Amino acid sequence: MKKDIGGRNCLYPLPTVLVGAQVNGRPNYITMAHVGIADPDSISLGMNKKHYTNIGIKENRSFSVNIPQESMVKVVDYCGIVSGKNEDKSALFKTFYGKLATAPMIEECPICMECELVTTVDFPNHDLFIGKVVATYIDEEAMTNGALDFSKIHPILFTMTDRSYYRVGERLAKGWTIGKEFKSPKDR
Amino acid sequence: MKKDIGGRNCLYPLPTVLVGAQVNGRPNYITMAHVGIADPDSISLGMNKKHYTNIGIKENRSFSVNIPQESMVKVVDYCGIVSGKNEDKSALFKTFYGKLATAPMIEECPICMECELVTTVDFPNHDLFIGKVVATYIDEEAMTNGALDFSKIHPILFTMTDRSYYRVGERLAKGWTIGKEFKSPKDR
Repeated sequence: MKKDIGGRNCLYPLPTVLVGAQVNGRPNYITMAHVGIADPDSISLGMNKKHYTNIGIKENRSFSVNIPQESMVKVVDYCGIVSGKNEDKSALFKTFYGKLATAPMIEECPICMECELVTTVDFPNHDLFIGKVVATYIDEEAMTNGALDFSKIHPILFTMTDRSYYRVGERLAKGWTIGKEFKSPKDR
Repeated sequence: MKKDIGGRNCLYPLPTVLVGAQVNGRPNYITMAHVGIADPDSISLGMNKKHYTNIGIKENRSFSVNIPQESMVKVVDYCGIVSGKNEDKSALFKTFYGKLATAPMIEECPICMECELVTTVDFPNHDLFIGKVVATYIDEEAMTNGALDFSKIHPILFTMTDRSYYRVGERLAKGWTIGKEFKSPKDR
């Protein structure tokens, strides 16, 4: 028997990322977990309109998505507490650029993606920015047999309902494989 | 030094969910991980237009998002391999309904959300469905002190780059808290 808790968004855990943007001429980074994959080439960011970062994304039509690792959890949480309005957060990381002049990325993160803004969906208090991934930069140590191996990356998961960060645990199964062991009622 | 691997979407791991919809008059479920939070009230689903489920979501303007647990990994993967065009997947679960007549939900999942379609963003091969969560049903055993506790839920994470399912590991830190221990360069 289930309990109705009202219309609560419980789509967690989601990956914690650092979003980079050029704001008022300098790099800025903000912690976000209300993210998603829109289509195979695109990432969405559901960002409160009050954030300083939104100014830069709208002006330059670009942003970066950087995936931090467990060891960075203090600075990651800090970047979600402190606004770029009040502190120069570019001093917290080693910044690099790729193909775009206005998508600063973070050397300390094992995965960095630079994105061009494709469209924005307007919500009452949030901008849903959807960006196409134009280039991806990774630490080579995170590869196994040519594939990016998330067991080597140690990303930080986030859940809003208990306001917690979680580790990623061990690999449970292979996709498009373990399901072949399932016996459908029609085959029993 | 980072390696440029081209424009690859590496926003993982994402939570594996079972999306429910009423298609041709009966419940259908499909496995999806290209999901996200659009704004605090809304969930996005990036679904290939070829999927059978898209027909029902467009027709009824509603869907459900059900979060399965580790023990269900075989049937979850199976629901991503087999299409509702070829098999009645409603037979695989105990279906229930909430406020909407066309958002079938799965009793076996500890978290079930019913959603009304708000808007669709059109991509070349994908529909990005954005739905508002109108009601959420949870197993009471998943609560700790009134908050939904993800350490009790055991959701299934997914990564496309290594086509794997992962467990969620232990709680790493509290959000808006651990960052207070970070010493900014300006305060050192």
